Amino acid sequence: MKDAAHAQEHITTELLVCVTCRRKGAAPEDERRPGRILYERILAGEPPEGLSVTPVECLQNCSNACTVALRGGDAKWTYVFSDVDETAHAPMLLAGAAQYHAAQDGVIPWRERPEHFKRNCLVRIPPIKPTSKDA
Amino acid sequence: MKDAAHAQEHITTELLVCVTCRRKGAAPEDERRPGRILYERILAGEPPEGLSVTPVECLQNCSNACTVALRGGDAKWTYVFSDVDETAHAPMLLAGAAQYHAAQDGVIPWRERPEHFKRNCLVRIPPIKPTSKDA
Repeated sequence: MKDAAHAQEHITTELLVCVTCRRKGAAPEDERRPGRILYERILAGEPPEGLSVTPVECLQNCSNACTVALRGGDAKWTYVFSDVDETAHAPMLLAGAAQYHAAQDGVIPWRERPEHFKRNCLVRIPPIKPTSKDA
Repeated sequence: MKDAAHAQEHITTELLVCVTCRRKGAAPEDERRPGRILYERILAGEPPEGLSVTPVECLQNCSNACTVALRGGDAKWTYVFSDVDETAHAPMLLAGAAQYHAAQDGVIPWRERPEHFKRNCLVRIPPIKPTSKDA
């Protein structure tokens, strides 16, 4: 086992949820933004150990809400996902975040990746510490 | 002067340039991708001290190329910009990167921000170290 693989077990994975997101054109049913509802549903899904869920203000992807990001230390890619559904997608996000947490560089193998992640990756940003592997 | 303001002077700002980007629908004139041309023009513009320019493989924003990102340590927002023109935008990017480098949290005041940054911010990601200021 590489040192890096051992070390990353102790690094928290962060799921950032934009709580100011609202769906385009849709009037909210109450005071809560869809991003806030999404955040609450993720928390209700009991995030596993090692995953921190952070509400954030405006990721400036307002036209493709809801928006979330996954990051996890200097050795992992950061991923941003768009068009997340606040009523249906909390379990998918928690499962995907667990896969991301388990992946040394944050790159979930394509075939194992949630369909929503495959089709709605807005952008990814490389690790701060360069790696030899690129995928 | 705050300690944080003093410390950030020593943190390198990184301009990530996707060198695999190509413009949608356009056949390249030669073997070089537009993202590679953009990277070369940025380097030719002599990046100022404190700015590191990094070529990266695929940020997965292929439908809105060219794509660049700015990041600078744990206390700054990370910004991703789309639709960068490889022939015209290198000077604008260098100027904008210098403004980003000078901003403690990476948030360039709106009125001073390059027009392209205002209109083509794909997404921004908050600092790893939370700050009290949000803009």
